[in-house]
Amino acid sequence: MTASVVDQALFDRVHSSFVRQGMMQHLGARLVRVQPGEVEFALPMGDKVTQQQGAFHGGALGALADICCGYAALTTAPVGMEVTTVEYKINFISAAVGQEVVCIGKVHKAGRTLTITSAELFDVQDGVRKLCGLMQATLIAVAQKY
Amino acid sequence: MTASVVDQALFDRVHSSFVRQGMMQHLGARLVRVQPGEVEFALPMGDKVTQQQGAFHGGALGALADICCGYAALTTAPVGMEVTTVEYKINFISAAVGQEVVCIGKVHKAGRTLTITSAELFDVQDGVRKLCGLMQATLIAVAQKY
Amino acid sequence: MTASVVDQALFDRVHSSFVRQGMMQHLGARLVRVQPGEVEFALPMGDKVTQQQGAFHGGALGALADICCGYAALTTAPVGMEVTTVEYKINFISAAVGQEVVCIGKVHKAGRTLTITSAELFDVQDGVRKLCGLMQATLIAVAQKY
Amino acid sequence: MTASVVDQALFDRVHSSFVRQGMMQHLGARLVRVQPGEVEFALPMGDKVTQQQGAFHGGALGALADICCGYAALTTAPVGMEVTTVEYKINFISAAVGQEVVCIGKVHKAGRTLTITSAELFDVQDGVRKLCGLMQATLIAVAQKY
Repeated sequence: MTASVVDQALFDRVHSSFVRQGMMQHLGARLVRVQPGEVEFALPMGDKVTQQQGAFHGGALGALADICCGYAALTTAPVGMEVTTVEYKINFISAAVGQEVVCIGKVHKAGRTLTITSAELFDVQDGVRKLCGLMQATLIAVAQKY
Repeated sequence: MTASVVDQALFDRVHSSFVRQGMMQHLGARLVRVQPGEVEFALPMGDKVTQQQGAFHGGALGALADICCGYAALTTAPVGMEVTTVEYKINFISAAVGQEVVCIGKVHKAGRTLTITSAELFDVQDGVRKLCGLMQATLIAVAQKY
Repeated sequence: MTASVVDQALFDRVHSSFVRQGMMQHLGARLVRVQPGEVEFALPMGDKVTQQQGAFHGGALGALADICCGYAALTTAPVGMEVTTVEYKINFISAAVGQEVVCIGKVHKAGRTLTITSAELFDVQDGVRKLCGLMQATLIAVAQKY
Repeated sequence: MTASVVDQALFDRVHSSFVRQGMMQHLGARLVRVQPGEVEFALPMGDKVTQQQGAFHGGALGALADICCGYAALTTAPVGMEVTTVEYKINFISAAVGQEVVCIGKVHKAGRTLTITSAELFDVQDGVRKLCGLMQATLIAVAQKY
């Protein structure tokens, strides 16, 4: 089952980096799905991720979409390389007030140096997904340092 | 001392909103300075704000710069209004690895509906500030809800 | 044939604004397709749209994607309103050196005040489309002035 | 007069690339000023640069700010290298309806691979400058090809 083996290796590649991220672990983000050029993460509602009105904080949504873009890019990066975010742009489309936010990151162009990605954020309320944010991000390949 | 009174009122306006932000309180951010059209925040290094290599997480820097832009915009918003982030774009310029990150947010245009801002992030290592990030953000005025 | 009538009205709405754009007319852009929430424009190669290496100028690509986002947003704006670009962000993914560039703009969220869109730019060389740019844009509804 | 010689060499470096840009020549842009890490361009009002309401077209403003960021970056690039725009984000702050638009581009960080810049656009009406746009851009160094 080559495909599964590849997916498991990809999943491990993303997961082993993700568990080292103090902040995202702390906020409670979890890795849901990994495939070549695409990843999905989820972030549950809670005190650690709210703003002054009790909705998800834009900073938490930005951080979640950032790692989605980054790990999507990691799935297409050469072995031995990792990726660093050069920049991103995010639109907050509607308040996220549900039980969790789900984010799907995708690679649009995997270059030797730069990788261009985007991510969609969905507010999940009682099982219904509603687009709440949109990111476009640029990543750069760097030699893995750990 | 009219100026001081104004500044205190402005400081209180920003601070009373800031303390309601679960996420930023949780990460340890603190309000340093408020003046019309400009605010400064600081975020100390710690487990809650790191990425997989032990530097400040891009998500923490994005969240910090986002609130700097937002609170800079709040200082110029009409009384009874608050502001919500429409979108922002951030460049990560160099790894932030110092004892804290300081962020200064400024208003470029305070419109009736939209306010345009930017923020500079500085990595502070042994008292030396080094530019580590740059944000440009758009905020929209909304009626205060609490 | 209600659908066709609607499409023709939409096409006319976009086209009647487009022909008033001195710059885009001048560069040679043409409207290809209009449907609710989506438009397509094309821009042929030529002296007026090149940079110092003879490829399409980033400025021309940005202008093309900008109007694609704008007119996509116009298709979902209430009658009597038009839209103005608040801001956009564009990634240049590869040099565009073909006979023309095609751009498809889409609406992600049509709000009462703000509309969030994205656009994909394709370099067309001998009939083959290759992604060469990606835009994410915010538009604001304003009363039509002409 | 070493400083002048350096400035003249810098001016020539920027100017010799600029005159090769078919589009910007065509629109009528002119190089005003060059210094290390900063350039200024101007674009006069005219049929070629207007949108449907007779103001400067966002696409023209984007193109102008793009070359300002690019040429600011070129002033700090190693000899033999030139720069290409990776991406930019622009806010349109107010309609530009004056006799010309002036743009000042600045380098915030000149890296070996990536350079981070910003640009301010000013509408000039009867000699008075008013901020009308703000850009933040990322450039990448590439070997000069001509």
